[in-house]
Amino acid sequence: MTNNEFMLLAIEKARTGINQGQTPFGACLVRKEEVISCEHNNVWNNLDITAHAEIIAIRKACKKLGTIDLSGCVMFSTCEPCPMCFSACHWARISKIYYGAGIEDAKKYGFNEIEISNDFMKEKGKSPIKIEKDFLRNECIQLFKEWSKSTDKNVY
Amino acid sequence: MTNNEFMLLAIEKARTGINQGQTPFGACLVRKEEVISCEHNNVWNNLDITAHAEIIAIRKACKKLGTIDLSGCVMFSTCEPCPMCFSACHWARISKIYYGAGIEDAKKYGFNEIEISNDFMKEKGKSPIKIEKDFLRNECIQLFKEWSKSTDKNVY
Repeated sequence: MTNNEFMLLAIEKARTGINQGQTPFGACLVRKEEVISCEHNNVWNNLDITAHAEIIAIRKACKKLGTIDLSGCVMFSTCEPCPMCFSACHWARISKIYYGAGIEDAKKYGFNEIEISNDFMKEKGKSPIKIEKDFLRNECIQLFKEWSKSTDKNVY
Repeated sequence: MTNNEFMLLAIEKARTGINQGQTPFGACLVRKEEVISCEHNNVWNNLDITAHAEIIAIRKACKKLGTIDLSGCVMFSTCEPCPMCFSACHWARISKIYYGAGIEDAKKYGFNEIEISNDFMKEKGKSPIKIEKDFLRNECIQLFKEWSKSTDKNVY
């Protein structure tokens, strides 16, 4: 599978979440071209404010691989991880993050964002994580558009 | 109960964690002088790199109170929350964080810290959370000393 295909899995998963009344975020965690976990934001379903797609993907990957060290794993996230999720990626020693939409896009659609970019977190926090932004950006932004049209959407 | 007593509960909980081979961090979440949740770091027990004391305390509080909005709740943490935990506090709309030891203390004892202070996260991220640092600092630093003497300690 290609990187494009991994991101498309994250996008499809986010779409599943939207259809369940969740917010439009998906994340796919990959190691050696194998999908380890693929999750959507589940804050409302779980009634858990920490249930961002990336956090759930990391937790599931730790369980699945039997380790807290996810070195060599790559995160494909439909939106730039918030500082909580970026920091979780750092703790998990994830090697690289690909993301589509930016934090400023999420803010535009009403999310209560912490406006600190991944680039900034990486530099200031001296994290070795590699970052590739704007990856399938248009397809990822499309998720916000679909979500904003749904009748049972809830922002937070 | 007083704020000192809430922090002492977090310290005692961290001590319970140390005795289970966990890292020396505890957090107590309080609303209107009632303890909502009190947890220790459980990364090794749960095999979950996101299982910091504050994250678990927030998740339990959401479940217990039946809401993702923890406005009015106060976090007592034995150590300055890492950026993951600080951001989770922001998302949960927690009103105030009291912490004892600082991120630099955790680093001194070998933790792979992201060196971004809560003050910085608050200012840069425009978070309304209030912060009170150095709260029972010596008692909280004592936890690191106890932990460093334990034979089954594991850093990450």
